[in-house]
Amino acid sequence: MPELRKDPLIGRWVIIATERAKRPVDFIAFHEEPAPQADCPFCAGNEGRTPKEILVLRDAGSGTHPSNWQIRVIPSINPVLRIEGALNRRGKGMYDVMDGIGAHEVIVESPQHIANASDLPVDQVHAALQASMARIADLERDPRFRYALWFKNYGSIAGAGRIEHTRSQLIATPVTPLRVKEELVGARRYFADKERCLICDLLHQERESTVRVVIDSAHIIALCPFASRFPFELWLVPKRHNCDFAKMQPEELGDLATVFKQVLSRLKTVLDDPPYNALLHTAPFRRQRGKVGHWKTIEEDYHWHLELIPRLTRVAGFEWGSGFYINPTPPEESAKYLREAGIEEPTTTEVKP
Amino acid sequence: MPELRKDPLIGRWVIIATERAKRPVDFIAFHEEPAPQADCPFCAGNEGRTPKEILVLRDAGSGTHPSNWQIRVIPSINPVLRIEGALNRRGKGMYDVMDGIGAHEVIVESPQHIANASDLPVDQVHAALQASMARIADLERDPRFRYALWFKNYGSIAGAGRIEHTRSQLIATPVTPLRVKEELVGARRYFADKERCLICDLLHQERESTVRVVIDSAHIIALCPFASRFPFELWLVPKRHNCDFAKMQPEELGDLATVFKQVLSRLKTVLDDPPYNALLHTAPFRRQRGKVGHWKTIEEDYHWHLELIPRLTRVAGFEWGSGFYINPTPPEESAKYLREAGIEEPTTTEVKP
Repeated sequence: MPELRKDPLIGRWVIIATERAKRPVDFIAFHEEPAPQADCPFCAGNEGRTPKEILVLRDAGSGTHPSNWQIRVIPSINPVLRIEGALNRRGKGMYDVMDGIGAHEVIVESPQHIANASDLPVDQVHAALQASMARIADLERDPRFRYALWFKNYGSIAGAGRIEHTRSQLIATPVTPLRVKEELVGARRYFADKERCLICDLLHQERESTVRVVIDSAHIIALCPFASRFPFELWLVPKRHNCDFAKMQPEELGDLATVFKQVLSRLKTVLDDPPYNALLHTAPFRRQRGKVGHWKTIEEDYHWHLELIPRLTRVAGFEWGSGFYINPTPPEESAKYLREAGIEEPTTTEVKP
Repeated sequence: MPELRKDPLIGRWVIIATERAKRPVDFIAFHEEPAPQADCPFCAGNEGRTPKEILVLRDAGSGTHPSNWQIRVIPSINPVLRIEGALNRRGKGMYDVMDGIGAHEVIVESPQHIANASDLPVDQVHAALQASMARIADLERDPRFRYALWFKNYGSIAGAGRIEHTRSQLIATPVTPLRVKEELVGARRYFADKERCLICDLLHQERESTVRVVIDSAHIIALCPFASRFPFELWLVPKRHNCDFAKMQPEELGDLATVFKQVLSRLKTVLDDPPYNALLHTAPFRRQRGKVGHWKTIEEDYHWHLELIPRLTRVAGFEWGSGFYINPTPPEESAKYLREAGIEEPTTTEVKP
């Protein structure tokens, strides 16, 4: 059973793999790039190579043949947390520890062997986001879980591993992660002072100045944040105030799919197919019954958003140690490149491959 | 002038390079490994290729010839912050910004072309740490600065760049970095509850159980922390309670040099010369006159330590988004490998090359 251990100094939880632990020799081979896999377990027809699916989306009228699917959600083959068991919270002297209970799911975003989600038709991106929403809403029902982190790794530098097939992942955790807590505290502090949502205010200001806005669509804005840590860092933010990604309206979801595909395509054009991570920042579960007072205010003061980080620079000692990032490209310039890359886009992105 | 921008949500400051900003094409070439440089600007005899030194340590009786030095501290050739000017704090709508004022210094740790500090004689490691202490104490006198971050990058994966010559760096910043603040808050919270230093308690517990201790020397303990984020992560901690690295006693400094060299040598043996980052966590400047109440308690509740992180795993979307790390090697096993690697060490490490 993996173990969750809490750093006593700053309160960060770490997942420690206790079975099949990596030994020094496992890291010495690390520098080799993984070879692309000939027989991809995520391609249609290879369903037998993965665990049974948790959720399948099919095109209307496509029948129920096992290989006739649009989106498959499966348990991870190498889960970082285990789904069965109780949390078993305990102390070890001054330290806090609990069993590594959680869910780790993979959302396979295409039956075809496509590597980058930028190359998916918009309806596939839409279906993948829809499946993600459904899974997050379902995981919320498990009383052991406090948070579901949705993320996407593309390219081996970004942690995608050896299988080059577009997918995103969901990890449900029994604790609210530290970075999420920091955002919640920041949003609450702003609301306590102004009685307004910080991100609503931020959108208002960004839409007035426009220099950092990449796409201003009907429901979703794509922008390079003012204090971007990384070159070409992007945020996708809904215009409507809403703390919970899984509570998006259908028209918002449709717009998000379109804007997400557009920004991925532009990153691919401008930066020659860079590795990237996408990360959803959404409200934690159990916000109605938290003991801590501020948990109850999350619905008014927090605003979900999706972060997109091309992995172009190396994070070195200074950044690790300080949480103080050095960004060599001002976000105003990143936004300009990404706006200009959109000029030659087709007017409709609803094209089947 | 580079700009410091504050993230409005979590309060993290970012340095934005506004001059010579990197364009997309600069990142496309990123994948190539830098070639080792034939003419190293940090080697003895090439002093003219760097800015004039801020501090030089010489062996007693070695004379004052420009190439006769043991340690040189020079301003960085590519400083991330500028030394001249006022902070010029201001708002941009809802955002906080100030000029990128700070110091960025390089501590050249050997006159010879040695890449890894593990290959330095102990007296060189000692002199390099001594120079670092002196520079931190000097930077504290500049009223514009709140913190000095000392760090060391070895290997290109760890951000060392193209010059393979052992060195550490110091960046003095006009704000206290977020990760440092988090530790200060954690230490204060523990002290408020127990009236004891968290790290003193932690050392007590670790020395009782010994499973995570690598070296228990006269003044310094090397251990793999309980909630290690990374395989073979190490902390070097002084036994004597002291918040300020620059206030070490001479016997502590001597022991730190010995233990630091030992753990670097063991990492090299066990992991086949891995890239690594070393990071000093020490108290901020101006702790006597802070407006915030807790600033005054730092001397009793905070305890400096040095973090050492071999860069063996890739940090992917999940870690970025959550601050929730997945460590595939339990620290008890890392500590065991590193203890066993020490068995064949020579009894004296005070050997000149």
